[in-house]
Amino acid sequence: MLPQWIIEKKRDGHSLTGDEIRSFINGYATGEIPDYQMAALAMAIYFKGMTFDEVVVLTDAMMRSGEVLNTSSIHGPKIDKHSTGGIGDKVSLILAPLVACCDIAVPMISGRGLGITGGTLDKLESIPGYRTNLSAREFFGVLRKCGCSIIGQTSQLAPADRKLYALRDVTGTVPSIPLISASIMSKKLAEGLDALVLDVKWGRGAFMKTRHDAELLAKTMVEIGRRMKKGMTALITDMNQPLGRAAGNALEVIESIETLRGRGPSDLLEVTLELSAHMLLLGKRAGNRREALFILQGHIDSGAAFEKFKEMVKLHGGMLSVLENPAKLATARIKREYLAKHAGYVAEADAELIGKACLALGAGRRRVEDAVDHAVGLTGIVKIGERVEKGQQLLTLHANDEGKLSEALLLLGNAFRISSSRSRPPKLISGVVVER
Amino acid sequence: MLPQWIIEKKRDGHSLTGDEIRSFINGYATGEIPDYQMAALAMAIYFKGMTFDEVVVLTDAMMRSGEVLNTSSIHGPKIDKHSTGGIGDKVSLILAPLVACCDIAVPMISGRGLGITGGTLDKLESIPGYRTNLSAREFFGVLRKCGCSIIGQTSQLAPADRKLYALRDVTGTVPSIPLISASIMSKKLAEGLDALVLDVKWGRGAFMKTRHDAELLAKTMVEIGRRMKKGMTALITDMNQPLGRAAGNALEVIESIETLRGRGPSDLLEVTLELSAHMLLLGKRAGNRREALFILQGHIDSGAAFEKFKEMVKLHGGMLSVLENPAKLATARIKREYLAKHAGYVAEADAELIGKACLALGAGRRRVEDAVDHAVGLTGIVKIGERVEKGQQLLTLHANDEGKLSEALLLLGNAFRISSSRSRPPKLISGVVVER
Repeated sequence: MLPQWIIEKKRDGHSLTGDEIRSFINGYATGEIPDYQMAALAMAIYFKGMTFDEVVVLTDAMMRSGEVLNTSSIHGPKIDKHSTGGIGDKVSLILAPLVACCDIAVPMISGRGLGITGGTLDKLESIPGYRTNLSAREFFGVLRKCGCSIIGQTSQLAPADRKLYALRDVTGTVPSIPLISASIMSKKLAEGLDALVLDVKWGRGAFMKTRHDAELLAKTMVEIGRRMKKGMTALITDMNQPLGRAAGNALEVIESIETLRGRGPSDLLEVTLELSAHMLLLGKRAGNRREALFILQGHIDSGAAFEKFKEMVKLHGGMLSVLENPAKLATARIKREYLAKHAGYVAEADAELIGKACLALGAGRRRVEDAVDHAVGLTGIVKIGERVEKGQQLLTLHANDEGKLSEALLLLGNAFRISSSRSRPPKLISGVVVER
Repeated sequence: MLPQWIIEKKRDGHSLTGDEIRSFINGYATGEIPDYQMAALAMAIYFKGMTFDEVVVLTDAMMRSGEVLNTSSIHGPKIDKHSTGGIGDKVSLILAPLVACCDIAVPMISGRGLGITGGTLDKLESIPGYRTNLSAREFFGVLRKCGCSIIGQTSQLAPADRKLYALRDVTGTVPSIPLISASIMSKKLAEGLDALVLDVKWGRGAFMKTRHDAELLAKTMVEIGRRMKKGMTALITDMNQPLGRAAGNALEVIESIETLRGRGPSDLLEVTLELSAHMLLLGKRAGNRREALFILQGHIDSGAAFEKFKEMVKLHGGMLSVLENPAKLATARIKREYLAKHAGYVAEADAELIGKACLALGAGRRRVEDAVDHAVGLTGIVKIGERVEKGQQLLTLHANDEGKLSEALLLLGNAFRISSSRSRPPKLISGVVVER
């Protein structure tokens, strides 16, 4: 079977067999099938889609293109959370230690930021000394000791996905639900999980612009996981405005610590607790959602979750003193308040423009090879529905460069809308997708 | 403008600007834009099509990726014919010298066979000594001396098209009317033509399986030519059964000589004369079609056309004695008659299966790198509508290998249908597309 016949079959709208998908992905992983044939197939998939059967095989083939971690030596259920990304989404930093307090192992392999979407690894690396590039042995060691570890993707995990993801990025084939689903699920399931909770975001600052698309993606991924015999739950959450009040790497670590100490913003806490509760349910550590939330709140109130976070950071080589005294984290040279021009209610706090402003300050990457500035970002971001007076701050910019500050201010010019009537805040969690 | 933005724009169904198309094709020709981005764009074009404006720019950009011949030093109008290819299509060998008799220069750059489609160059190369790889200077020399020359594509002509054509072949992006049109027209117009006549074939043995698709392709190419200020006419012709009665390289040269001498099969003669007549009309060498046909028939009857063919072959280094005595051409070892199992009228003579049988004998190429056997092929092929008696020959196979002969016979098993009632022969020329 020549690769072009498989491309033509998909182009003509037919379903591919398991053998066809496996031989194509394996050939691509080994380099036998060149990038140009993979690019043509990806574009055909963009237009013609895939059945659930096809996406499951695609996921499995990409997962098996590399090592699948054998976590059987780790005690308890192995459960992870994955978010499709957004602005101010620092949930992983809080959730991993919090859930690890409940006798669940959280083997979290995370990514870096790209474009307006922040990355968990960049946030953690603003803690001096924190190593994200542990070997599999070290990773297992940390998991065994404290129940959670957050590291970066290794070259051994799902190499076909890494290759395909880079290709899709430059061939206009990113926004395809089958390809997105298989990419996420192949990476996550290579962690050797028992179950996975997904945070699928929709809105201005999310990859999925509509709730409908987010639901479709969530349902596809839940179905893939179900067919691969994994416990699965997905929440559909709002990303029209940023999550929490801070965006930027060190600034988000500070907000995460505040939240672990019970002093975080309510939206961030709510999303974190809901996602964590579903992990407890999947791991049978609670009988129902209410009980799970009660247990989780207890670990925050007792300080156990923050202690677990410190333990994890320490095992990764991170400096503990900055966690106790976050003022010691990298600080930007310039602080500038961005003020409301008139009084009213916040009707819009556009996550995309706020994300772009954050990127302009240097907190994110325009291209994969860019470096990030851990100190810069935004704090004190007002939320939709809140009352502001004329001259009151809508947020504070933290910058290290006057030019970048000006660029960020320009972008923020259209980010907020202040209205005389009070808007209802967007629904934070708009849906739950569970296995049927 | 990043290449992926152009891909995304086409993917989303928008028209590309001239600058976008030119920068993409130029980047691809220089190697700056890699194959995988071109493959993704080609697949997006397959699905979303192109406007006439876009196809014209694409054609122009591919044409200008290499040398455009300056034929201003050649006397008279420069007019060529291009066929989309089929089984037994040896029209070029007859048409080029015939039209050159009428004070029109025919600078014909032709191709090799691939799959079931024969190639003019392969046919000419069955004449010992005939050189198809003339330099541009030699080509112009032959044109100046005898008014026609048939050579192969040089690496200087439309290199972007050659690169793209090879890529489309392995990425499932061949059957796209904008891409086919731009490919044909960029190569042909690089010959420095004043006008072009197209033979767009449809049917079992043609690239276009339906008359509708053939008409669409013809209209697209005529419109491209019109916008590029070239005289254009396209004929839609039948390729459900082979053209003429012979298929195979030396065997087609023999049939061409017979036709130049006024003894060829009527369908081959008719198509050749009609295409030639339109060249005379475009070159203002006749006032109307009837007059053109009269002039052309005169050059066959007088022997002038055959003399012109010999002159061209001689100027290309070909051995003249084989033209006078075609028995001297390469001959196959085995001759086998293929007989009718019962009496009746030929209702089907499937050009595709007959083409595959010819390919099986070794007359064509399965892959670009294959060699062809000039001697093998088929002769005496019956035509739809003809009466055959039981045991009468449907065709004669010329083979050099018993195994290949068996393979060909197997394919021929389903090629003919003999019916008790007489079928009407398919209409040879079903349409003419001229500029509006």
